[in-house]
Amino acid sequence: MNSYGKLFRVSLFGESHGKCVAVTIDGYPAGVSLSEADFEYDLKRRKSGSDGTTPRIESDKPNIISGIFNGKTTGAPITIIFENKNVHPKDYDIFKDIPRPGHADFVAMKKFGVFNDYRGGGHFSGRLTIGIVAAGVLAKKIIHPIKISSALIEAGGTKNIEMAVEAAIEAGDSIGGIIECNVKNVPVGLGEPLFDSVESLISHIVFSIPGIKGIEFGSGFKAAEMRGSKHNDPIINTEGKTSTNNAGGINGGITNGNDIIFRVAVKPTSSISLIQHTINIKTKEMTNLTIEGRHDICIALRIPVIVEAAAAIVFADLVMQENKIYRVMR
Amino acid sequence: MNSYGKLFRVSLFGESHGKCVAVTIDGYPAGVSLSEADFEYDLKRRKSGSDGTTPRIESDKPNIISGIFNGKTTGAPITIIFENKNVHPKDYDIFKDIPRPGHADFVAMKKFGVFNDYRGGGHFSGRLTIGIVAAGVLAKKIIHPIKISSALIEAGGTKNIEMAVEAAIEAGDSIGGIIECNVKNVPVGLGEPLFDSVESLISHIVFSIPGIKGIEFGSGFKAAEMRGSKHNDPIINTEGKTSTNNAGGINGGITNGNDIIFRVAVKPTSSISLIQHTINIKTKEMTNLTIEGRHDICIALRIPVIVEAAAAIVFADLVMQENKIYRVMR
Amino acid sequence: MNSYGKLFRVSLFGESHGKCVAVTIDGYPAGVSLSEADFEYDLKRRKSGSDGTTPRIESDKPNIISGIFNGKTTGAPITIIFENKNVHPKDYDIFKDIPRPGHADFVAMKKFGVFNDYRGGGHFSGRLTIGIVAAGVLAKKIIHPIKISSALIEAGGTKNIEMAVEAAIEAGDSIGGIIECNVKNVPVGLGEPLFDSVESLISHIVFSIPGIKGIEFGSGFKAAEMRGSKHNDPIINTEGKTSTNNAGGINGGITNGNDIIFRVAVKPTSSISLIQHTINIKTKEMTNLTIEGRHDICIALRIPVIVEAAAAIVFADLVMQENKIYRVMR
Amino acid sequence: MNSYGKLFRVSLFGESHGKCVAVTIDGYPAGVSLSEADFEYDLKRRKSGSDGTTPRIESDKPNIISGIFNGKTTGAPITIIFENKNVHPKDYDIFKDIPRPGHADFVAMKKFGVFNDYRGGGHFSGRLTIGIVAAGVLAKKIIHPIKISSALIEAGGTKNIEMAVEAAIEAGDSIGGIIECNVKNVPVGLGEPLFDSVESLISHIVFSIPGIKGIEFGSGFKAAEMRGSKHNDPIINTEGKTSTNNAGGINGGITNGNDIIFRVAVKPTSSISLIQHTINIKTKEMTNLTIEGRHDICIALRIPVIVEAAAAIVFADLVMQENKIYRVMR
Repeated sequence: MNSYGKLFRVSLFGESHGKCVAVTIDGYPAGVSLSEADFEYDLKRRKSGSDGTTPRIESDKPNIISGIFNGKTTGAPITIIFENKNVHPKDYDIFKDIPRPGHADFVAMKKFGVFNDYRGGGHFSGRLTIGIVAAGVLAKKIIHPIKISSALIEAGGTKNIEMAVEAAIEAGDSIGGIIECNVKNVPVGLGEPLFDSVESLISHIVFSIPGIKGIEFGSGFKAAEMRGSKHNDPIINTEGKTSTNNAGGINGGITNGNDIIFRVAVKPTSSISLIQHTINIKTKEMTNLTIEGRHDICIALRIPVIVEAAAAIVFADLVMQENKIYRVMR
Repeated sequence: MNSYGKLFRVSLFGESHGKCVAVTIDGYPAGVSLSEADFEYDLKRRKSGSDGTTPRIESDKPNIISGIFNGKTTGAPITIIFENKNVHPKDYDIFKDIPRPGHADFVAMKKFGVFNDYRGGGHFSGRLTIGIVAAGVLAKKIIHPIKISSALIEAGGTKNIEMAVEAAIEAGDSIGGIIECNVKNVPVGLGEPLFDSVESLISHIVFSIPGIKGIEFGSGFKAAEMRGSKHNDPIINTEGKTSTNNAGGINGGITNGNDIIFRVAVKPTSSISLIQHTINIKTKEMTNLTIEGRHDICIALRIPVIVEAAAAIVFADLVMQENKIYRVMR
Repeated sequence: MNSYGKLFRVSLFGESHGKCVAVTIDGYPAGVSLSEADFEYDLKRRKSGSDGTTPRIESDKPNIISGIFNGKTTGAPITIIFENKNVHPKDYDIFKDIPRPGHADFVAMKKFGVFNDYRGGGHFSGRLTIGIVAAGVLAKKIIHPIKISSALIEAGGTKNIEMAVEAAIEAGDSIGGIIECNVKNVPVGLGEPLFDSVESLISHIVFSIPGIKGIEFGSGFKAAEMRGSKHNDPIINTEGKTSTNNAGGINGGITNGNDIIFRVAVKPTSSISLIQHTINIKTKEMTNLTIEGRHDICIALRIPVIVEAAAAIVFADLVMQENKIYRVMR
Repeated sequence: MNSYGKLFRVSLFGESHGKCVAVTIDGYPAGVSLSEADFEYDLKRRKSGSDGTTPRIESDKPNIISGIFNGKTTGAPITIIFENKNVHPKDYDIFKDIPRPGHADFVAMKKFGVFNDYRGGGHFSGRLTIGIVAAGVLAKKIIHPIKISSALIEAGGTKNIEMAVEAAIEAGDSIGGIIECNVKNVPVGLGEPLFDSVESLISHIVFSIPGIKGIEFGSGFKAAEMRGSKHNDPIINTEGKTSTNNAGGINGGITNGNDIIFRVAVKPTSSISLIQHTINIKTKEMTNLTIEGRHDICIALRIPVIVEAAAAIVFADLVMQENKIYRVMR
């Protein structure tokens, strides 16, 4: 199913080179001001245009087609549609027979057969994340005072991101990166022990974003090398504040009142201009492949806002479950 | 909710120092042979007893109280209970007021108030993972030919695990570790694009295991430093076999037929004998804390079988969704 | 949440006098032929136009905006939009303060406050059932050889339906009716004991249709007056065929291979031209109300196809759970 | 799946003649007083013993094995087990080959094959409803001020219930009945439009109770014969009170503040002493069947408390969704 969340429920539909990509948010409170302009800031952060991002430019204008009346949400499901305009479906005909390494071409063909919409990745495309960003805009409006921020802290193995991107462009290659997300002002007690731990919920939605290969909370993989005496965060006041934050703000699956910190690893974009090796499914022969089309050099540049939106969706859902949000905003 | 899965549904209940810990598996096919002996091998792998594990020894004898008739599953929900026998609830009275650093004591108290069952972590305890292992035993019986294995590949920052454990024991401290899990013979096409990606499903359940701080698939965090030309796995035959496996067996959220590989980081056990700093919630004063009780030095030693079970649960659920398992086994 | 189903999942959005009403179907198999013409027959059955139905005429032209490629479904979520064209939102301003008896005006105002979209019932409107009919069209394509039919068998207390409608028109009043639904060629063994009984699943979705007041299966309310010796259906062959069908095709929540028969009671349309009594919420005074606008005299005339679609959705979901439908149609 | 509910989640397991029947309630607030004595009153109402009920007497002693500490709920899942003691599994061997008319014997055999636990209906048995009653006891504790009552108002077609039962006993036959349920003090605004209407939720769980053939709300099937001018309930104050209650307390799927009224039809018990006709699955010959064993003459006598519990579960779930209950009781 392409839905996520319990009380704040997000569903995605659409295709990269079909009529549109879109998102429905069900369970959203009534009475929240909402206009199409509200999406501008975050959508712009996701957009391509700068060095290292694809030359495909879409206007990404949100069209809210339900759940709003007189500029406020009504309590009914909210659907937001983004029309696809700059489509070049013919660019992708070749990948029906010659799956691109690192892409979903092969698995989509196996899962959905010849019926798969292979154009630009179809429903598998990173373009679908625009719906996550839009849902994140709605989520952020109701999780006050929680504040979420995220940033690309490393690309191609270095903190000198701009230079790494330039080098990759020159090489006709692509690079990955690491994004860090920080969630502030989180109340103590969100999440559940075991299956609905906060880490479970966040990782579930974060791995929905195409290209993510890893996630770690607080000390993360470094924890494996540490001793308990160093890793345990001393508690220094009755609100649960700790002097270190190796836990990343979560103990036993539950928020502990300190900042939630997590990092995600983004792989280098699969589409590159260099020659690659793959198989021709029809002729069953190995073949060289050069991908022309339009693509991002460093997709990680566009992902911080998506990770941020994903986290906002998790916290909106959790906060609603803890009775901190009412069905009608006051 | 303490449940996981769509068609193969696992629910946990019980407490570390209450009457029992237990698991219910709903949706399991009829006609599968099942006896209490079937659980022995995996339960033993999870059990303590060796160097670096807690001296609390429980018999961990499974008692199947529903869903079985004449030695076969019936199609009705299966509940398996593990009585707690070796309980020392008094050991934990002190932590009501003095939350242990790195434990769920503080958050549980905040979430459930004075009503929380604080004895040995109550429902938050790692002891609940016995239910995951038991569900994993059932899952493994129906996912043929898929084979899952996992192992501790590093502890305390070194591959020389035994020595690292000994050093930690001497120091009265604890250490973490890294577990690698490998899933073989996976059919192409399991999982969904976006919200129900295979990485989403695996990470969701893996982060239910207490003490996990990170997860990475295939190349994982190294992907962030790689170039696309190196990271993309060349496809070398029409079954989708690739010459490298940076994808970890998953593209676009869908299994690609290669081995699924993932690693998880386990933090050092929170309970240590060394003096630690925390707050006394009642007196509001900083205090030193020495944890006596019984505890694991390197809980990571006991987690490989749990990770393996978690993966088996995911694949049982996926395989059922893809019509590869019938409600009545043939 | 405005979603129904486990593997065949239907979500509704939109408003009666907003931009559109719409439906998303998630989990649908790839490779099913689908064109906008496929919806014509059933949509026409739901449409107004004949005596006893509202003069609001909408073209009800389906616009499939996702999940289809080259005339076949792709396995991705399918969204179908119906634009609202013939909207008279001003007709409804009065009901903000003066709730109509028998309508959702009052409860919607209480639930969603002043933010409720009160125009023509907004998201509460019977117009939303167009999405159920559209999902039913998709469901019917994949449940072969199951055949569903339903008909209005009584209106205003008589089988002489046309005359009852004429009499109500003359009186400026409205009438209810009884619809019977019959499901043929059902395999034995669909449904689950207890919470997911077939009656539970059917009644759940049928009561989603505005105006339904009751449902009964097989002998229904008459069963309460019968003796067991008369009610028990003798089994006459090894396929489970019974000589009577008081069970309505279901035993213990599971289909028994005989036809599923159920009847639903539809209340008389709430909107009538006659004077009614209600309260003015603002002035707190009792007031007389005459509803002008456009409305159905006997909404039950339009509901058989909706009930049929609802049943088709249930059986599509059940059949998918029993491995009788593949993700890719063959 | 054998689970029901969104935030207040009830799961049933166990078999009629296995080790036990049991229920797990997940999502229940912490801090509610709970003892085994709390179940006595309602369990006694469900119990057999009076004229017209089965001579199988079980002690029905609840054993709370998780989720409770020092006499209060802890916020963790609560499991309550009822051991089966008075089992006569051999009574049922015959029905493996000769399915009883009106029972689930045939469908269970088809669904789960020879692996089905056919003893006394196994997991299909009405004995499982003890778990619904137990969950109802917990639900009732947290839905204050909502009050639910239900009663058998008719049996065998007459209000003179005792006489109807005696007549059926004499005849060696069984009778059905009608139960009415009344829910008082319901806040306005519970439920959702369309798929999660209050009628949808109540009917879903009520049809989980074995033997129910129909349900109607308010005017119910009579609505089909009424005119709108008579059926519409005039609103007489600003709280939404109506002078009649044909709506049964629900408009547009949402509670309107008036009493919720619904009636359910219970079929006559299938097990009767009279000779019946069925098929021998093995010999493929028609055969006469006389059921000896122990059975209820009028199972409807024992169902009012189950219907009441079912309604309480629905309202507990709804009230939790509307933020009227906190995770920790105050």
